[in-house]
Amino acid sequence: MQGGTETEKIILGIDPGTNLMGYGVLRVTGHKAAMVTMGVIDLRKYATPYLKLGRIFERVTGIIEAYLPDEMAIEAPFFGKNVQSMLKLGRAQGVAIAAAIHRDIPITEYAPLKIKMAITGNGQASKEQVAGMLTRMLHIEEKDMLPYMDATDGLAAAYCHFLQMGRPAAPQPYHGWKDFIRKNPERVKG
Amino acid sequence: MQGGTETEKIILGIDPGTNLMGYGVLRVTGHKAAMVTMGVIDLRKYATPYLKLGRIFERVTGIIEAYLPDEMAIEAPFFGKNVQSMLKLGRAQGVAIAAAIHRDIPITEYAPLKIKMAITGNGQASKEQVAGMLTRMLHIEEKDMLPYMDATDGLAAAYCHFLQMGRPAAPQPYHGWKDFIRKNPERVKG
Repeated sequence: MQGGTETEKIILGIDPGTNLMGYGVLRVTGHKAAMVTMGVIDLRKYATPYLKLGRIFERVTGIIEAYLPDEMAIEAPFFGKNVQSMLKLGRAQGVAIAAAIHRDIPITEYAPLKIKMAITGNGQASKEQVAGMLTRMLHIEEKDMLPYMDATDGLAAAYCHFLQMGRPAAPQPYHGWKDFIRKNPERVKG
Repeated sequence: MQGGTETEKIILGIDPGTNLMGYGVLRVTGHKAAMVTMGVIDLRKYATPYLKLGRIFERVTGIIEAYLPDEMAIEAPFFGKNVQSMLKLGRAQGVAIAAAIHRDIPITEYAPLKIKMAITGNGQASKEQVAGMLTRMLHIEEKDMLPYMDATDGLAAAYCHFLQMGRPAAPQPYHGWKDFIRKNPERVKG
């Protein structure tokens, strides 16, 4: 095989929470995925909602600039808790999404059940089971994973996206709204 | 009075909804406010949530670039409806907030009741009553206001912010998180 003929793709996975935001970056070469980095943005030390949102925007932008992802996958629960915590979660997601929109990075959302199912074959798998599968499949040493247990949902979103890529039933990522409108004029009403 | 001694401030008010997003721009000179523009971003024609979010980010960024607001006021309901609509609303707000954070524009939030109270003296005032007061106080002709009835909440947020400015009990706007941390190190825990 000649050099440069394999497609390389960088996938950023994030799990945008209001207290902890986990992220993971995968490099996909051909049909193989390898972890580039993973981490946690700890938002608990910021006393106001705006500090948290500002921090999310700054850090996601920083991660995008550092790793230049081609696509972003987010874990996106749609239900749960009460209306106030959902508004807060929505804002955190919105700010992270805006950082990707700003850089024209396609975004795909996955429900937590879908991510667990794709990685472990069980939609009800525990965080530990998901982390365990990720360490095996990505050849991460357990000691390297342990400090980032909170980040595994971000990495799991990225890995789920890798598993879905190229499948016929794969969700279509959002490729920037201008691009989307150009390709899907029928989706814009009126 | 000499020219250039009066402080001029531009206030952008927005009401970030998931279907319609109203905005209004005020120019405050000394103790007087005048409307610069108002409008509605109609999101109903975009078929997917991402198209809506992309459109919000692009339009709010465009308005910020066009009018260079010094401060942004948003109408921010914290309760209501069901968890799914609150998540959507939170995302819309988060994207609009990110556009302001990106340009380091201080943001102040006002609850709908607070806005109605500040403008009409009645927290339960109708949309029409708020619009009526705004037309009188800002000397807008009713025929110019009518096509933008959906935008009045954005303009009302801006006007409420103008009324609160300089008052001792005024909410402290968020001035970009770096600035905030510099000025309020005690608000960052740990």
